[in-house]
Amino acid sequence: MENGSSTTSKKWGFKGNEALTKASANSIRTVLMNIMSKIDPQDPRPTIPLGHGDPSAFPCFRTTPVAEDAICDAVRSAKFNGYALQVGIPPARRAIAEYLSKDLPYKLSADDVYVTLGCAQAIEVILTVLSRPNANILLPRPGFFLYDIRAAYTQLEVRHFDLLPEKGWEVDLDAVEALADENTAAIVIINPGNPCGNVFTHEHLKKVAETARKLGILVISDEVYDHLTFGSNPFVPMGVFGSIAPVITVGSISKRWIVPGWRLGWLVTNDPNGILEEYGIVDCIKGCVNISTDPPTFIQGAVPDILEKTKDDHFSKIVNILREVADICYSKIKEIPQITLPSKPEGSMFVMVKLNLSLLENIEDDIDFCAQLAKEESVVFLPGVIVGLKNWLRITFAVDPESLEDGLGRVKAFCERHAKKQ
Amino acid sequence: MENGSSTTSKKWGFKGNEALTKASANSIRTVLMNIMSKIDPQDPRPTIPLGHGDPSAFPCFRTTPVAEDAICDAVRSAKFNGYALQVGIPPARRAIAEYLSKDLPYKLSADDVYVTLGCAQAIEVILTVLSRPNANILLPRPGFFLYDIRAAYTQLEVRHFDLLPEKGWEVDLDAVEALADENTAAIVIINPGNPCGNVFTHEHLKKVAETARKLGILVISDEVYDHLTFGSNPFVPMGVFGSIAPVITVGSISKRWIVPGWRLGWLVTNDPNGILEEYGIVDCIKGCVNISTDPPTFIQGAVPDILEKTKDDHFSKIVNILREVADICYSKIKEIPQITLPSKPEGSMFVMVKLNLSLLENIEDDIDFCAQLAKEESVVFLPGVIVGLKNWLRITFAVDPESLEDGLGRVKAFCERHAKKQ
Ligand SMILES: Cc1ncc(COP(=O)(O)O)c(C=O)c1O
Ligand SMILES: Cc1ncc(COP(=O)(O)O)c(C=O)c1O
Repeated sequence: MENGSSTTSKKWGFKGNEALTKASANSIRTVLMNIMSKIDPQDPRPTIPLGHGDPSAFPCFRTTPVAEDAICDAVRSAKFNGYALQVGIPPARRAIAEYLSKDLPYKLSADDVYVTLGCAQAIEVILTVLSRPNANILLPRPGFFLYDIRAAYTQLEVRHFDLLPEKGWEVDLDAVEALADENTAAIVIINPGNPCGNVFTHEHLKKVAETARKLGILVISDEVYDHLTFGSNPFVPMGVFGSIAPVITVGSISKRWIVPGWRLGWLVTNDPNGILEEYGIVDCIKGCVNISTDPPTFIQGAVPDILEKTKDDHFSKIVNILREVADICYSKIKEIPQITLPSKPEGSMFVMVKLNLSLLENIEDDIDFCAQLAKEESVVFLPGVIVGLKNWLRITFAVDPESLEDGLGRVKAFCERHAKKQ
Repeated sequence: MENGSSTTSKKWGFKGNEALTKASANSIRTVLMNIMSKIDPQDPRPTIPLGHGDPSAFPCFRTTPVAEDAICDAVRSAKFNGYALQVGIPPARRAIAEYLSKDLPYKLSADDVYVTLGCAQAIEVILTVLSRPNANILLPRPGFFLYDIRAAYTQLEVRHFDLLPEKGWEVDLDAVEALADENTAAIVIINPGNPCGNVFTHEHLKKVAETARKLGILVISDEVYDHLTFGSNPFVPMGVFGSIAPVITVGSISKRWIVPGWRLGWLVTNDPNGILEEYGIVDCIKGCVNISTDPPTFIQGAVPDILEKTKDDHFSKIVNILREVADICYSKIKEIPQITLPSKPEGSMFVMVKLNLSLLENIEDDIDFCAQLAKEESVVFLPGVIVGLKNWLRITFAVDPESLEDGLGRVKAFCERHAKKQ
């Protein structure tokens, strides 16, 4: 190749943005990939992936044919090959507004809805919108890593409040009041909870809204696991309290329809008093969405069918399997003294368990536990430190029941082998 | 609603990021929407949209069934419902590497390819990667607005070099040398050209690479209109010169397959000497991609079939229609003295024409021309100022031939009506 050899000695003037390389270095995926690299390729047993929330590979979690049909119909119609309006195409916005309004005391309009690339882009948008010099945001600990990454990247200061394991992972509202100041823009809650598997009560959500009102901040409610509840608390959308404090809901079809790869989500303003409009947040959301990439038009075109035609039997099938695996998870973990589950999971696809290091030999911390577990048992957990709680573990139970039994059986064997001799 | 009335009087602490609201305020879409709002709803004639490049709504530009089948097969397989690796799924990366390698003197590897949400996200990624304090980037004038918006948003300083109409819109390489300094990271070229409809020769592209090498900067080559050429210059990918200077190619299936709404694109490192790796750019691209949202997995799953199975008859059908409409555009505009086309379009879907304001009565500038044209004739053009050339117009000819004839006929009538009396 011409000039090939001399080129490498040339001085080039460009350089990458190091903040980026760093921001992503300890993303969940990177950590999981490190842990997965420990798996012994010689192990004849299947790897049991309990580290991340994507059950779509298991046949029992296959999505409904209604959703597949909706996509194929939209593609075949050739009506959705062109660019879409970046806020989303009107039929998709309307369908999402109607879908969410079913659970609210007022009706959302299509204009309240912005169609996004999964819930992830909705998070990206709202954090970008709120980032201004000195602004801060209140995030739950433990929480979902994407908020921290995106906040760091947009230079929004993060302040963490605790979720209280002894209170079923409710928000420590006193801590919230102590953390907030005049530069606080919002509080984030995730309900049903990742990583705790809890479901907030109507009463607690109302208190969150009242606290937000008192502090003059908005509530960002991540409801990506909406309706995935199988305990005593039903799912209540935060939007119910939108007249107490303005609420921005982020969600997607990723979890309820088990299609995280389809990347179809939403950002919704639940604000019957029009405060977000008045304070310029709505214009700013539009601005942000306008310079972002929007979801493929034909997927948006499929949204009305997906939301309107999916039958209850799909939803109850999914919730029933989740209840079954949550039960297995709970009872299997109870047999392992080295890890403790503070309460039975009631929603989402995850639980947090506490590592009792004093009962284990030669295990340094949660990362070390996960690395050794992957190496010896081909079972993948997420170290709690990644979600904010050192020496805890996040376990996904959304896998097929047999894999879960197999995986937790291996964890038990691992813990027995590594138990501190008494 | 409880507390409803008192809520509006409360002081809320949040505020939107104003830079965002501004950044998007004069995006192409916003300007086009303003112009389109001038259209008289009483006009019984159809609106002729010559303002933006999306021919997908016209039956003669319908995509190939091969592509539709590929999407439906991928969805029905249920193999692509889960999250994808954020760099892209391996079969898609491999297929794109092979597709692009056909036109290169060396073979790209799958690792050179990052699958993105259309070419737009590839642009977003590379500009984000290059943004560092004081860094600047060289952009063509006229150019594609997204580069300016994203650069402003990532705080990358923009310096414009001219494309020279009298030289078939070639890059003013002297200007490039004069503009660059030690903080210049890259030069952007768009080939085939938006908005000029030109196609760079092999020789000119080589000179661009040599200039980049001399300046120590990389070349970002936007080839979203790759292979859409119908004049004397064939399409030559900039990657051919990747051993002279490192080249980052951005592209997509949006234009060649006429599916801009599918949002499937790529960012590709053409760098046989490994300079981008050595200078940390590759790590930074991975970092950026890792914290971004990736294209829906099933669309990625369809990529091998789309790229490998599409027959030549689809491509030649599209190029033949484009040649036909480019010819119509050229000959119709030649009949209108008030607008001048410096050269016949040879590629992409656009031309730039110069407005001769001295021959027009009561028309202030390009924006005014477009607004009055929309109002009186229901024909939409893009004001040149949006792409960097005041008192020029950007015309899309990628519409069906009849609409184009109709539209340009109305433009002629409009210009005659507004001609300065002599
Ligand atoms: C709490 C939470 N929010 C958002 C997301 C992202 O959702 P999506 O896949 O729809 O982008 C996830 C994904 O796991 C999540 O757990
Ligand atoms: C020069 C140029 N680059 C990039 C794009 C964006 O392409 P895509 O639709 O694949 O994101 C366009 C779209 O019109 C374009 O004209």
